[in-house]
Amino acid sequence: MITKYRFGTPVIDTEAVVVRQPEAAVFQKGDDVSIPGFSAAVVDANLQTDGSVRRFGVTKQLPRKDAWQFTLELHDGDRVYGLGEAQRGMNKRGWLYISNNVDDMYHTESKYNLYGSHNFLIVERADGSDGNVAVFLDDPGVCRFDVGYTDKDKLIITASSLNFDLYFLTGADNSKKPLSITREFRSIIGQSYIPPKWGMGYGQSRFDYFTDADIREIARRYHENGIPLDMIYLDIDYMVHYKDFTVNTDAFPDLTRLTTDLREQQGIRLVPIIDAGIKVLEGDETAEEGIANGYFCTKEDGTPFTGAVWPGLSYFTDYLNPDARKWFGRHYQFLLDQGIEGFWNDMNEPSIFFTNETIRRAVETAEKIGIKDNYTIEDWQAVTAASAGMGEQMQYYDQFYHTVNGRRICHKDVHNIYGYNMTRAAGEAFEEICPDKRILMFSRSSYIGMHRYGGIWTGDNASWWAHLQQVIKQQPGLNMVGLMFNGSDTGGFSGNTTEDLMTRWLEFSIFTPLFRNHATENTRLQQLYLFKDLKSIGNIVGLRYAFLPYLYSEYVKAALNNDMYMKPLSFVYEDDPAAKEIEDQLMVGESIMITPVVNQNASGRNVYLPEEMRMIRFRSAEDYDTEVVPAGWHYLPCKLNEVMVFLRRGHLFPTAAPALSVAALDEQNLKVYAFGDGSYQLYQDDGVSKDFANPEHLKTIKVTDGTVSADGLNLTLR
Amino acid sequence: MITKYRFGTPVIDTEAVVVRQPEAAVFQKGDDVSIPGFSAAVVDANLQTDGSVRRFGVTKQLPRKDAWQFTLELHDGDRVYGLGEAQRGMNKRGWLYISNNVDDMYHTESKYNLYGSHNFLIVERADGSDGNVAVFLDDPGVCRFDVGYTDKDKLIITASSLNFDLYFLTGADNSKKPLSITREFRSIIGQSYIPPKWGMGYGQSRFDYFTDADIREIARRYHENGIPLDMIYLDIDYMVHYKDFTVNTDAFPDLTRLTTDLREQQGIRLVPIIDAGIKVLEGDETAEEGIANGYFCTKEDGTPFTGAVWPGLSYFTDYLNPDARKWFGRHYQFLLDQGIEGFWNDMNEPSIFFTNETIRRAVETAEKIGIKDNYTIEDWQAVTAASAGMGEQMQYYDQFYHTVNGRRICHKDVHNIYGYNMTRAAGEAFEEICPDKRILMFSRSSYIGMHRYGGIWTGDNASWWAHLQQVIKQQPGLNMVGLMFNGSDTGGFSGNTTEDLMTRWLEFSIFTPLFRNHATENTRLQQLYLFKDLKSIGNIVGLRYAFLPYLYSEYVKAALNNDMYMKPLSFVYEDDPAAKEIEDQLMVGESIMITPVVNQNASGRNVYLPEEMRMIRFRSAEDYDTEVVPAGWHYLPCKLNEVMVFLRRGHLFPTAAPALSVAALDEQNLKVYAFGDGSYQLYQDDGVSKDFANPEHLKTIKVTDGTVSADGLNLTLR
Repeated sequence: MITKYRFGTPVIDTEAVVVRQPEAAVFQKGDDVSIPGFSAAVVDANLQTDGSVRRFGVTKQLPRKDAWQFTLELHDGDRVYGLGEAQRGMNKRGWLYISNNVDDMYHTESKYNLYGSHNFLIVERADGSDGNVAVFLDDPGVCRFDVGYTDKDKLIITASSLNFDLYFLTGADNSKKPLSITREFRSIIGQSYIPPKWGMGYGQSRFDYFTDADIREIARRYHENGIPLDMIYLDIDYMVHYKDFTVNTDAFPDLTRLTTDLREQQGIRLVPIIDAGIKVLEGDETAEEGIANGYFCTKEDGTPFTGAVWPGLSYFTDYLNPDARKWFGRHYQFLLDQGIEGFWNDMNEPSIFFTNETIRRAVETAEKIGIKDNYTIEDWQAVTAASAGMGEQMQYYDQFYHTVNGRRICHKDVHNIYGYNMTRAAGEAFEEICPDKRILMFSRSSYIGMHRYGGIWTGDNASWWAHLQQVIKQQPGLNMVGLMFNGSDTGGFSGNTTEDLMTRWLEFSIFTPLFRNHATENTRLQQLYLFKDLKSIGNIVGLRYAFLPYLYSEYVKAALNNDMYMKPLSFVYEDDPAAKEIEDQLMVGESIMITPVVNQNASGRNVYLPEEMRMIRFRSAEDYDTEVVPAGWHYLPCKLNEVMVFLRRGHLFPTAAPALSVAALDEQNLKVYAFGDGSYQLYQDDGVSKDFANPEHLKTIKVTDGTVSADGLNLTLR
Repeated sequence: MITKYRFGTPVIDTEAVVVRQPEAAVFQKGDDVSIPGFSAAVVDANLQTDGSVRRFGVTKQLPRKDAWQFTLELHDGDRVYGLGEAQRGMNKRGWLYISNNVDDMYHTESKYNLYGSHNFLIVERADGSDGNVAVFLDDPGVCRFDVGYTDKDKLIITASSLNFDLYFLTGADNSKKPLSITREFRSIIGQSYIPPKWGMGYGQSRFDYFTDADIREIARRYHENGIPLDMIYLDIDYMVHYKDFTVNTDAFPDLTRLTTDLREQQGIRLVPIIDAGIKVLEGDETAEEGIANGYFCTKEDGTPFTGAVWPGLSYFTDYLNPDARKWFGRHYQFLLDQGIEGFWNDMNEPSIFFTNETIRRAVETAEKIGIKDNYTIEDWQAVTAASAGMGEQMQYYDQFYHTVNGRRICHKDVHNIYGYNMTRAAGEAFEEICPDKRILMFSRSSYIGMHRYGGIWTGDNASWWAHLQQVIKQQPGLNMVGLMFNGSDTGGFSGNTTEDLMTRWLEFSIFTPLFRNHATENTRLQQLYLFKDLKSIGNIVGLRYAFLPYLYSEYVKAALNNDMYMKPLSFVYEDDPAAKEIEDQLMVGESIMITPVVNQNASGRNVYLPEEMRMIRFRSAEDYDTEVVPAGWHYLPCKLNEVMVFLRRGHLFPTAAPALSVAALDEQNLKVYAFGDGSYQLYQDDGVSKDFANPEHLKTIKVTDGTVSADGLNLTLR
C-alpha cells in the first residue's frame, strides 16, 4: 500500500513518480501532522536539535531555513536500507547523508553526499515486528537523512523546505518486507532503462588526449592479446575546446570511418562524453541559439548565468524547460549521424569550478596582500581560503534560476533533478530520432526517475581497495531505485592502480551491468594489455562474456518485472539473521550469489551461505573446479586469478563460450550449470530493438533427472 | 647473523644502530656488487626501469639522480613484513613506499609516505625455503621501496644516493624466521623507550583553545561519569602566538597550580605539545639565542632559513648539531618546572606551510592575472596551482642546510632523521634534568633510533573505519622497529566521528600502549562523556585499566628483551599458513590474541584461531562470558559494547579491578584468567623510576592444578 502526503506546494513535479498516487492529506506549516511512528515539526533547518550541525561542518549544505523534519525512533539492531548511491554500508545506519548532488572526487568516509540523490529508504525492525517503515521523500532540494548520526537511536529526515511530497509504502502485499516494498516502489516510478546488449560488454576508457590512431591501437592490442572489448570511450579531449557536439578533426579526421571500421572489424563501439556546460563563445551557433531562445539558466535578473567548467565560462542549459530539453537533445544527432550509438553525460550536478566573481575575489585577496618582505600566517590562510573557496560548488546553487511555465525557480530548490533532466533530454531525443533502437546512455548525476532514461557510473572513484569494497555496498541502494544499469570505474579513476587491485576489481565488475575500466590523466596507464599476467586477466574478462547470456537475461527480466538485478542476501533470505549482516556478498539475478575478494594479498575469504549451494571456482570458462558447500560460514581459498560463483539449488546458470565481443557470442550453444533439477526462463533478443514484451524472447530451460533441454538451443549440462 | 655493507661515504651517522657492526665490504660507484639474491646497479633514480615513475606522479619524491638500486625476485605468495609506520597491509606487497617524512593528513590508499621512515623489511618466502631476506637500509634521504608495485614479482629498493649503509640479517640463530630476525635487529638498535606507567592510562586531547577552566571541566566530567582519565593534552593554543616554551597566561594564569591540582585531586597529568618551528620574532630570546649561536638551519649561503608554520615564519632548529640539540632540549625545563611530566613533539617532519618565496609566487600569479571581466580556465588553473603549490612540502627540503662538524649538509640528504633528532634532543635533556624519572614523550615524525627516546602517534588520521583498520595493520611494522609505544588518534582526528566508530575504536585502543582520544577543530566534540551510552563506554575504558597489570608488564618485558609487544599471528604460529593471511587480529604479549570488530554495524566477526583458546567476551571487567573455542575459523558474535580476548593454553592473563586513574589501581589484588595450568612473569615497578633491571620487579604467578599463587600478591583465579 502506498500513502502519499503533500506538504505545501511542491515547486515542481519531479516526475520521479509516473503512476500518480492520490494525496491522503495535504499539510501546511502549522498543521498537526500525524504520520504513524514519526514525530513531525517545522524546524529551523540551520540547527539540529542540539545545535550541532554547524559544528559538524555541514553549514554549506543546509536546507531552506524553514523545513519539515520527521523523526523516527530506532532500536538496537534495526537496519536501514536504501538512499541509492550513498556511501557507507548496505545498512545505512550510523551516518549523515545529504541529498545535494556534487562533483567531489574524494569519496572518503567523511563525505555526506555524492553525485546523485535518491531519497528512498526502508527501516527494517530487528524484532521482526510490524514496524518496518519505507519512505520516499520526493524533494529535489537539499534534504538530510540523519540515520543514527547525531543520536544513534534516531532517524531524522529533514526536507529541503515546506514544499514536497512524502510517500510511505508497505508493499503491494502489505507485508512490509523490504523486497516487496521495493517492487511496489519501482512499480510507480517506471521501468528501468535497458541498454543495448553490446553496452553490457567490456569498455576501455581514459581521460586522455586520444587520436584516431590511438583508438585503433587500443582496439588492436586488446584483440591481439585475446581480451574481449566492446567499447572504447572518449573523454572530453575529443571535442574542440571542450564544446559539446563538436569533434576535433585534428585527432579524428573522419569519425564516421573510425566508428564504421571499429564496428565492422571488431564489433567495437566508440562512446563519447557529453558535458553539461555550453561554452560561452561569441558567434558559436549552439551558444547563440540557446541565448536567443532563453534555453539557459539565468541570474535572478533574467540575464544568463555563467560558471566555468572545462570549456571555461559556460552556460547551463535549463533542462527543466521542456523546450530547452528538446533543443539540447536534438544535438546528439550530430554524433549519432557519425555512427555513434552511445554516450555518457558528465559534469551534470552541475559541476562549477569557479565564477567570475569567485576567481575575482581570489585575485583581489592576493592583490590586497601584495608583494612584501615577510608574510603572515593570516596572509597564507587568506590566499588558500580564496583559492579553495572557488571549488565550494554549493555556493553557486543559490545564484541561478530555471524558468518553468514562465515561473522563475531558484536552482537550489530543484538542484538534485538537474542531471536527471539532462539525461532525460537525451533519452527523449533518442526516442524521437531512433524510436526502435536502444542507445547506450549513462550519467554521473542522477535522481529517482532518471533510471528510465539511462544508468549511472558511480563517479570519480580512486584506485583504492576501499572503493572496490564501496561499490559492492552501493548495489542494493542503486538497484532499489531502479538504477540497475550501473558500474564503477574499474581499477580506479584517480591514483595509481596495481595489477592485483585491477584483477580483483575486474572479478567484481564482470557482474555489474556497466563494465568499464576508466582512469584519469597522469595516472598509471591501465589498459588491460599493459599488465603482466595477461592470460589470467583475459580469462576473467572472458568470464563476463561467458556469463552474459545469464546476466543479460536477468537484467532485462528485472527491468521488465520491477525486480532488482543485484540484491543483498537479506532481501532473499528474509528470515536469516546472519544474512542481514553480510555486506560483501550479493545475489545476482535469481540463480547465483557472488563473493568477491576485496582485500589486498588475500588468497581466500570467509563466505556465508544462507543455504547449501554449489560453488564453482572459475579460472576461465573452461578451467574451474566445483563442489557443494553446506550452509553456514566457510573460509574458502580464492587465488588472485579465481572467481567464485555460488549456484542455488533448483536454479540454473546458463553460460556461453567467451568471445571477443558481444556480437561474436554464440548464444545458441550454451553450457548450463545446474544444482539439482530446475528450470530457468532465459531472455534472449536481438540486443538492439525494443519489443521487450515479445513472448518469443523467453525460452524455458529445464533440467529434469539430470537432462537439460530447451527448444531451439543446444545445451550442455555442467 | 648480520652483514653490513657500506656504499660510498654516508653523509652522516644516523645512529640508528648503536651496536656497531663491522663492514663486510665497502662499495663505490662502478664496483661489481654481489649480494646474494639481489641484483644491484647504479641507476638514474629519476626513472624506473620502464620509465614509469614520472607517469606515476611521484616526481617530487625522487632520490638523487645517481642512486644504487637493488632488485630481488618475488614469487607467488612471498610476503613482505616491515616498513614501520607505512600504510596498507601487514603484508606490504603490492604498493610503492617512499621514505620521505611528510605532514599529510589525508592518509588515503593513494599515499606513498607518512610521517616516519623505517627502512627495515623482511621477505618471507612462500615455499618455506631458506630464501627469506631481511634488509635495513640505513639511509636518511629519500628512498623507495617498490614492493611488487611496478612489477608484481619484483622488490626494487632504490637508495637515496650512492652513500649509505645496508644491513642484511638472518637472526641470531641464523634461522631466518621473521621474529628471530626482528629480535636480532632490535638488539643492535637499542632498547625501546619505556613510558611512565601513567602514560599508559587514557588521555583526552583536542585541537582547540582550552583554558584552565576548560581543563578542569574535562577532568571533572570524566570522573563524574565514572570514566577513567590519566592525561589531558594541550594542543598549540596553550602557547603565546604558538611560540614553543611559552604559556598563554590569559588561558592559564597559574599552570603550576593547575598541574598540581589535577595530579593531586585526580591523578591526572597535563601533556603539552611542542612544535618544531621557532617563531621569527625580533627581540624574542629563544629566536635570538638560536641565531646568535648558529643553532638554526640555514640557506646555502649560511643565513637562516625560514619557512612558515603555525607561528608564521619560523626558524628550524638544527637538531643534527649536538650543541643545538642540547640547547633546544634545555628549554623543556621551563614546563617541567611547572609540574609538566610529559610532552608530544609535533610538526617535526618538518612541516612547512609556505615560504616567503612560494606565497610571493602565488600573489604574483594572481596579480599578473589581475581584475578583468572574464576569466579563463588557464587563469583558474594558475591560481589554484600556485595556492596548492605552497603546500608541496618536498620542494622545501632542497632549500636548507644543516651544519654537522662544520660541514654543511643539504636537508634533503638527511631529511628523515629530523624529527628523530628533535625527540632525541628532548630525551637527552630529560636524562640530564631528571635522570631517575621517566618523562612521557612521543613524536609525530620518526626514524629508526628514535624508539630509544620516545614513541609516536600515527599522525593526523580521520574518523574513518578504514583508519581504525589501518592502525591495526601498522602494529607489526612499528613493533618490529622498536616503536612499540604508539597509538592512533582514537575516534579520528579529522572529520566527524560517530558513537559506534568511537566505541569500536576504543575497543582496539585499550590495547595500544599510547591510548589517546584526539580530534581537530571544527569537528564533532568527542570527549567520551558527550556520547550516549556512557555506561558501556566507561566500561570499555575501564577494561584498559583492568588489563593494565598485564599490558604494562608485557610492554616493559618486550622493551627489555627486544621482543615485540604486538605481533602478527604469523610471527608466533610460524608454520600455520592460514595465520599468515590474518591482518585484523594481533597477538598482544605472550598470553592473548585480540580480534577487534572494525566494520560499521557489524555485531560479530570471523575469527581465526591457530590453536584452541579460551575466549573471554567482556562487557566490563565484571560482566563477561567465556568459552573454549577450537582451532580454526569461527564466526563469533561481538556486540557494540563487547570486547573479545583469546587466552592461549598454558598462559595467564592477570587483571585488576578498574580504577579512575593508573595511580588508583590496586595491583596487589589481581584476578587471573587462566586456560589450564601455567605460569607468568609479572613485571611490576613504581611506574616512574628507571631501575628496570631490578629482579624484585618480576613476580612469578603460577596456576597448578587449578590453584593460583604468587608471593606478595592476592590472586583470584578466573
